[in-house]
Amino acid sequence: MHTIDFEPIGRRGPCSADHSLLDCARQLNVDIVSLCGGVGNCGRCRVQVIEGQVSRLTLDEAAELSADEQRQGFRLACQAYPLSAVRVHVPPTSLTAPQRTQVEGLEVDVMLEPPVRAVEVQLSAPSLDAPIPDDLNLLASLGMPGGRIDFHLQQTLSRRLRELDWRLSAAVRGGEVIAVAAPGAPWAGLAVDIGTTKIAAYLVDMATGRTLAAKGMMNPQIAYGEDVIARIVAASKSPADAQRLQNLLVEALNQLAAELCAQSGLAVEQVVEAAVVGNTAIHHLFLGLPVRQLGLAPYVPAVRAPLEIKAREIGLQLSPGAYLYLPPNVAGYVGADHVAVLLAARLAEAQATTLAIDIGTNTEICLAHHGRLTSVSCASGPAFEGAHIKFGMRAAPGAIEHVRLQGERLEIQTIGGEAPVGLCGSGLLDVVAELRRNNILDKMGRMQENPRVRKDGVAEFILAERPGQAPLTISQKDVRELQLAKAAIRAGIQALAAAAGLAETDIQQVIIAGAFGTFIDLGSAVAIGMLPGLPLERFHQVGNAAGTGARMLLISLSQRAKAAELARRAGYIELASVPNFQRMFAEATYL
Amino acid sequence: MHTIDFEPIGRRGPCSADHSLLDCARQLNVDIVSLCGGVGNCGRCRVQVIEGQVSRLTLDEAAELSADEQRQGFRLACQAYPLSAVRVHVPPTSLTAPQRTQVEGLEVDVMLEPPVRAVEVQLSAPSLDAPIPDDLNLLASLGMPGGRIDFHLQQTLSRRLRELDWRLSAAVRGGEVIAVAAPGAPWAGLAVDIGTTKIAAYLVDMATGRTLAAKGMMNPQIAYGEDVIARIVAASKSPADAQRLQNLLVEALNQLAAELCAQSGLAVEQVVEAAVVGNTAIHHLFLGLPVRQLGLAPYVPAVRAPLEIKAREIGLQLSPGAYLYLPPNVAGYVGADHVAVLLAARLAEAQATTLAIDIGTNTEICLAHHGRLTSVSCASGPAFEGAHIKFGMRAAPGAIEHVRLQGERLEIQTIGGEAPVGLCGSGLLDVVAELRRNNILDKMGRMQENPRVRKDGVAEFILAERPGQAPLTISQKDVRELQLAKAAIRAGIQALAAAAGLAETDIQQVIIAGAFGTFIDLGSAVAIGMLPGLPLERFHQVGNAAGTGARMLLISLSQRAKAAELARRAGYIELASVPNFQRMFAEATYL
Repeated sequence: MHTIDFEPIGRRGPCSADHSLLDCARQLNVDIVSLCGGVGNCGRCRVQVIEGQVSRLTLDEAAELSADEQRQGFRLACQAYPLSAVRVHVPPTSLTAPQRTQVEGLEVDVMLEPPVRAVEVQLSAPSLDAPIPDDLNLLASLGMPGGRIDFHLQQTLSRRLRELDWRLSAAVRGGEVIAVAAPGAPWAGLAVDIGTTKIAAYLVDMATGRTLAAKGMMNPQIAYGEDVIARIVAASKSPADAQRLQNLLVEALNQLAAELCAQSGLAVEQVVEAAVVGNTAIHHLFLGLPVRQLGLAPYVPAVRAPLEIKAREIGLQLSPGAYLYLPPNVAGYVGADHVAVLLAARLAEAQATTLAIDIGTNTEICLAHHGRLTSVSCASGPAFEGAHIKFGMRAAPGAIEHVRLQGERLEIQTIGGEAPVGLCGSGLLDVVAELRRNNILDKMGRMQENPRVRKDGVAEFILAERPGQAPLTISQKDVRELQLAKAAIRAGIQALAAAAGLAETDIQQVIIAGAFGTFIDLGSAVAIGMLPGLPLERFHQVGNAAGTGARMLLISLSQRAKAAELARRAGYIELASVPNFQRMFAEATYL
Repeated sequence: MHTIDFEPIGRRGPCSADHSLLDCARQLNVDIVSLCGGVGNCGRCRVQVIEGQVSRLTLDEAAELSADEQRQGFRLACQAYPLSAVRVHVPPTSLTAPQRTQVEGLEVDVMLEPPVRAVEVQLSAPSLDAPIPDDLNLLASLGMPGGRIDFHLQQTLSRRLRELDWRLSAAVRGGEVIAVAAPGAPWAGLAVDIGTTKIAAYLVDMATGRTLAAKGMMNPQIAYGEDVIARIVAASKSPADAQRLQNLLVEALNQLAAELCAQSGLAVEQVVEAAVVGNTAIHHLFLGLPVRQLGLAPYVPAVRAPLEIKAREIGLQLSPGAYLYLPPNVAGYVGADHVAVLLAARLAEAQATTLAIDIGTNTEICLAHHGRLTSVSCASGPAFEGAHIKFGMRAAPGAIEHVRLQGERLEIQTIGGEAPVGLCGSGLLDVVAELRRNNILDKMGRMQENPRVRKDGVAEFILAERPGQAPLTISQKDVRELQLAKAAIRAGIQALAAAAGLAETDIQQVIIAGAFGTFIDLGSAVAIGMLPGLPLERFHQVGNAAGTGARMLLISLSQRAKAAELARRAGYIELASVPNFQRMFAEATYL
């Protein structure tokens, strides 16, 4: 028995010498991707051995791993057996979706300049000789004689000062004291990316910038429609409907904050700042701002400027004095979340001609070229989230996430290695790419005759037989849905390049953001024409960049200043007004 | 028939030549004081004839009016008959209490520097070519590119801009837009003096500083106790009790605001600023601030600094973006209302040694001497408001407000000239002074034998027989209550003078504020020893100075700066810690 450490996920346990690192990982619930089932020919289970001895390189590994990788200690987990205690680094690309979400972006690489700082002080108790009022007493002790105290804090301050026996830690924000607590208590911040479909929330230590805990959940507004247009319509019906849509988000964030705090051993009253990003419609719905004008030409936001309000103003239950910050929107369909992506991708600093794509139900794309940033918004729809796909599902255990088809042989990788129950976005992309590569789909996306294709009304390709159940399939209709979604993205890229007078091949770097974008096989995405046919090394998958941007904005005032400048600088092209956009879109549907 | 104009109350009507100006005033519901019933010997019905001809001066008038007054056109209204159309000025001292409250301080003499200004603008409607977001559109049109928009205004702004067809009047406060309305709509402010017993509210036009309407009501917290100590105890029982006490005031102000707006033809949404003054306990209870520590030594306020919060934060229903301003407190028992009185009395500018007294359930007194301001607070109690007095009542129709006793002859003036039903504060003062002058009370306040004195348990002096009812009386116990109340005030004055190394006679000017203080007969107040025995011309009755101060603070930013400075500069003496205070107080009870 040897002890194996898996990093950075932090799992550790015993492994016998006759179990591969892949087996060992599975015993410890570390979900490493494997398509071929451990026979050494899919090359997906790459890991890096950092410390300790393992068995020798196999021929399969020598074929799959480059000389560079071999030098760095990379191995296929299914081929390597421990010979001693071993420390293994699992790169994000080798983890399945749920675990990748958990790991990615544990830290944010930005200088800490938090809006709130902790100051510990000892006050002097008032006496008949010096009956100093409580507000002046606190401000004088903090060396802030002209400062303010949050009004809600004032309402409990006198009691708290006496309970704490005049010794405390104050959360100070600019010239305002917004919270007090026992000395030593940490102050936390909440960063949230509210997507049309999913919400990602992070609890951050404001003194260190370290992410204490992260958690995701579905956007509960989905009950009112899968895309933002449906929700704008729903919210425009009556003020009560708008209020309901707002409440859903506020309650979701309150729940996330409470759960993250419980996980981290903090009270929600210790959360003194929140930074929230979302697209313009989500931003407005979350704040209770009017959205009617967002749904009608010329699609203007009610609010473009960055906002800083008391979190309590919209019912967020954090520290009573906590502020809520939202970065600026760019336009009606290019929102604050896009600004967060641009920040996280450091697009303003890009020297090369760079494209940043945040793939989601709505996909925003920005082209940075010679210091100019121009964005478009594409209605890519919820197909990548599994909606409107016969066996579509979200990235959850049992979802097919990767597929390889070679003649008769179909290799399937599901999340968690469980029996397949459906097809998530990256799986859908792989399937279509493989069907096209094997000429089971033609250029137009028409499904051809094949032993695995059956016709039950529409043509369907059988992915998996399931005893006692209908087989798991992808239908002709599913392929059409994907064609529309990928065409929306590709046509957006083409329109941006054309407006800048560039060919797509001039794009030197493509940054792909969004949970879905992280999990796709780039080869497949290029193969079906969703992404331009550039060398694969030009693409960089950066995960939930909006969430990363939200965390950067939470802890850095200069990132906030940069966000304001980005929103001012960023140009915007309304695709509906691009003359030949319909033709570009139609052509982009080809596989 | 001649037309008679009564100023400044603004009543006008016909009067026949055989009716005196007093008769004529009564026909027009102008309530002029008259004790003697119009026989020309009480000298109370002084008026000034400004225009037109009246009958010749009578011998009675020649005896009552000084040569100076005669030169200025002063007459006794009961002796003067119109010979032509006449314009008459009625000085506040000649009006009965209710009408005086209505008239006094119709205007505030301070330079207009309002915190909120109206700006009318025309926005350009957004188009597909220039889809300018609504927030930037408004701020750009106002020439405030770096400005802010109140968050609640944002929540309705997009709809309002379109309803108003992009043309509007904005209420701008510093760098913030707080409200929008149709062009030409006036913006108003609300000034409120919350007394322990009464609330006075004023609606003010923010563009002119003019008072549009004024209204008073009882402080509904009275149900929780007549003085602030009782209310501090009540509010300290539980957060729910504190909340109830706060709600009572907030609802009272909402009701007053709604009524004042209805009277003036405005919507409450046009009220964009409020300035509220009250003593420290009332200030804290109104804001939901903790009061427990106010009731315990060393009696420290939770908040001394001036406050500026959104009015909505405590549930005030004005314009959603309206601010609420409260001037600073000085100490636990010298509050923001005292600061307002000092402002209205211009005590900071006083060259002479000046005393300012705001008489109420709690009486605050400030001595200005050689540029130094020092204040005390005296628990004078609610006797002046009619509480704990057998037939005590507030200044309402039927209340005896002035009395003269000459041997057997008792002259009584009631409010509204109605049959007497009780005794208000100024009447109580007069009665005790007259009883003392006629030796029916001795120096200790003991009631002596007299045909009008009966003994029914305690001695009682009969003020009026009432057929079928018990007679209206003042009892020995009532006299004791008044002695305690007046002693509290006098001892406070003596302590202040002593602390400054002055004799009371060194005081060159005495400013008497408060509704009650306006209605008292100064001669009586001096006679019973409530006020020091200074020449009467050193006293100035200025009415509800706290209310006047509130209006000054509402419309003038430099008055707010001055208030902050006053609170910093003002010294404070805690009477409980003055060594021989108990002796001073005991001696001050003598009549």
